[in-house]
Amino acid sequence: MLTRFALTVEYDGRPFMGWQRQPHGPSVQGALEAAVRAITGETVAVHAAGRTDAGVHALAMRAHCDIAKPIDAFRLREALNARLRPAPVAVLACDMVADDWHARFSCLGRAYEYRIVNRRAPLTWERGLAWQVPQPLDAMAMAMAAAMLVGRHDFTTFRSAHCQADSPVRTLDRLEVIHAGDRIAVIAAARSFLHHQVRSMVGCLALVGMGRWTPDDVATALAARDRARLGLNAPPDGLFFTDAVYLD
Amino acid sequence: MLTRFALTVEYDGRPFMGWQRQPHGPSVQGALEAAVRAITGETVAVHAAGRTDAGVHALAMRAHCDIAKPIDAFRLREALNARLRPAPVAVLACDMVADDWHARFSCLGRAYEYRIVNRRAPLTWERGLAWQVPQPLDAMAMAMAAAMLVGRHDFTTFRSAHCQADSPVRTLDRLEVIHAGDRIAVIAAARSFLHHQVRSMVGCLALVGMGRWTPDDVATALAARDRARLGLNAPPDGLFFTDAVYLD
Repeated sequence: MLTRFALTVEYDGRPFMGWQRQPHGPSVQGALEAAVRAITGETVAVHAAGRTDAGVHALAMRAHCDIAKPIDAFRLREALNARLRPAPVAVLACDMVADDWHARFSCLGRAYEYRIVNRRAPLTWERGLAWQVPQPLDAMAMAMAAAMLVGRHDFTTFRSAHCQADSPVRTLDRLEVIHAGDRIAVIAAARSFLHHQVRSMVGCLALVGMGRWTPDDVATALAARDRARLGLNAPPDGLFFTDAVYLD
Repeated sequence: MLTRFALTVEYDGRPFMGWQRQPHGPSVQGALEAAVRAITGETVAVHAAGRTDAGVHALAMRAHCDIAKPIDAFRLREALNARLRPAPVAVLACDMVADDWHARFSCLGRAYEYRIVNRRAPLTWERGLAWQVPQPLDAMAMAMAAAMLVGRHDFTTFRSAHCQADSPVRTLDRLEVIHAGDRIAVIAAARSFLHHQVRSMVGCLALVGMGRWTPDDVATALAARDRARLGLNAPPDGLFFTDAVYLD
């Protein structure tokens, strides 16, 4: 008799090759699966709402796994956090859920935040946690360009060559540029994203911010449906998975 | 002919023994002085508005030094940032100032922010950048206790045994508790602070937040003027030097 547990997971992507289990290096999934094994003796798969790349962080990734050992959700969360140390992965919440609840397939929406620090000086305590852009960025122009990407489009231009999705068509519900002092945050929300989509969109918005592209150039690149027309892929450092939405 | 330069410095306190130059380990002052020496060949002293402890960070420490080599402020800033790598110290601003401008003695006010993450789960990307308090904190009670410390008082209770200040009397202009979700920030501003004063005040506010002390217990500890009455000294992790104020 297996019990399904839903997890809310925060992690620092810097030491990991990404979410997904890898034979040749540390992964967030691998760290969680090893912690479950240490607690229960069971070899389980931990499934996530999204598989983040190397160096990408999460404030609230949602995941699930099935466990046979009788254990309540609170004790499981505490045991996972104890076993995860010193890896920078923390289980913020743990709940029993129905057997048909699936972190990936039940997920109705995902959100990311991309953090830019717009200054000449290098980063200190934020190193690896934001993208430092030395050229002055025009956040207003970036916001105008962002508006051109919202909606249902073929995002081939903004999709990694390694993307495994069946279709390049996605509906981007929200792409907002928030500006305060030398900080610029780009908030993206959609039912789902293509591989590298957020970083690719942010890279092109940054080109607009630098004045090297106009907002219309972003629309033209989108319409081209051609990866070769991508202006710039932003580094993973600034990207945080912030939310996964479910019906329940 | 020496030129005095004022610097605004950001740093991650984690790898340092503190601001002050030390014979037995890395310091922020030592990193800056070594960078100036590499650029100018000159052995200078870099003076700061405040000498932060090991593990304490700065978003905008103010400092100054005198340089003989002819160099403009922009080039000095760029050269310092290039030479400081890979130390997590960055010069955000650099300006020529009058010879009587002194980062420490001309400073009319200092401000700190102390960051608490109030949750059971360990920290991930914020490790060393905040104080994780697992017990639920009552931010309202903390704010009431904070109000009792504002004003001109003998802060002996909140002063390290190693404090070198002539007098334990300080005027605390502001001690605010800001609460959002599981984040609590304590903002402190005064003309100057005693050694460990902010961490000691935050430690006692946290005791109030946990319900182990009442706001009145903080007033009683203050009135006792006795270091032995200090409830708790908060760890350096969450402390950021955020501002130094000058007349000009």
